Amino acid sequence: MTVTTKPAPAKRVRLSPDARREQLLDLGVRMLATRTLEDLSIDVLAEQAGISRGLLFHYFKNKQDFHRAVVQRAADDLLARTRPDLTRAPAARLALSLEHYVDYVLANRLSYISLVRGAAGGDPALLEIFERTRVAMTSRVTDYLEVFGVADTPAARLLARGWAALVEEAVLSWVADPRLTKPELLRILASSLPAVLAAG
Amino acid sequence: MTVTTKPAPAKRVRLSPDARREQLLDLGVRMLATRTLEDLSIDVLAEQAGISRGLLFHYFKNKQDFHRAVVQRAADDLLARTRPDLTRAPAARLALSLEHYVDYVLANRLSYISLVRGAAGGDPALLEIFERTRVAMTSRVTDYLEVFGVADTPAARLLARGWAALVEEAVLSWVADPRLTKPELLRILASSLPAVLAAG
Repeated sequence: MTVTTKPAPAKRVRLSPDARREQLLDLGVRMLATRTLEDLSIDVLAEQAGISRGLLFHYFKNKQDFHRAVVQRAADDLLARTRPDLTRAPAARLALSLEHYVDYVLANRLSYISLVRGAAGGDPALLEIFERTRVAMTSRVTDYLEVFGVADTPAARLLARGWAALVEEAVLSWVADPRLTKPELLRILASSLPAVLAAG
Repeated sequence: MTVTTKPAPAKRVRLSPDARREQLLDLGVRMLATRTLEDLSIDVLAEQAGISRGLLFHYFKNKQDFHRAVVQRAADDLLARTRPDLTRAPAARLALSLEHYVDYVLANRLSYISLVRGAAGGDPALLEIFERTRVAMTSRVTDYLEVFGVADTPAARLLARGWAALVEEAVLSWVADPRLTKPELLRILASSLPAVLAAG
């Protein structure tokens, strides 16, 4: 008697439409880690999910709708993974958030570059998601104003927003050409925040 | 005898194909100041230039080719207008470059936002132009490393690039919602550069 190595077919689970949609979005986000938004087609998703193209259009009206949903999910993931741990002291909290951010970009390099560098292609809904994510990331930085003894002024808020862009740019640049170790990168990013805020 | 107010028709000047192309690009960039790249069609350009659509395709192969040429011209303009005046002392040079940059963004708000926020839509040629422009802007910042007594290290270069992104983000944010005066904005941007570089 030979032992078959072929795995038993996965038990077909009947999912509710909502659960199925969530599953498809998760798959979309995973696929986005290694390809740009442009290359994320309904056809490829259907193939990867093993369901028909027609059924997919039951969950997403069209390619644009699918892209928006995937990008929103990716933005939610980024925000969740980099959420500051408020039980920690501010310095440790900042260091940890930065580390999770760098790890996220490393793990989702292509999609992250695509999102930051012009994936919207003029779609106002995508631009809106990017903008909301940017504002959410920045609003965390403003939590550090008090920590660093900086008054909450329009100048300080502008610099906080600018610092978030500095981090985004420096990390993208580092990922493309890492001439520093990760700890070195994290150190200069963390120490640049109080420096920037003090310029207000 | 009545005096006609109708202006004499402009003398038709025969332009060389190169000169005509330059003229069309200038018009494209001016049009881009008040509309996004998406809305800059060959049809609108033909109408504004008063020449036929067919003739336009003599100068630009297609819409994509036209967009690339206009974006390249806009990037060249930005770099030219913000070129540091090397006859000035470093502090004055930085202040003046920043002021010209802010003025450029103010004058070309829509196009600038469109270029920075996702106009590329995955066109690698457009992304390449953005990237080259970003590198050119950053390379000017690295000129200040010596001025501010900072060694030219990978960390300093990463921070210089990050600072250019900080300026871009802060100025776009300020243009959308100006809660500081322009001199206040220029002051915090200028003072943030040595602060950021010192974090290396």
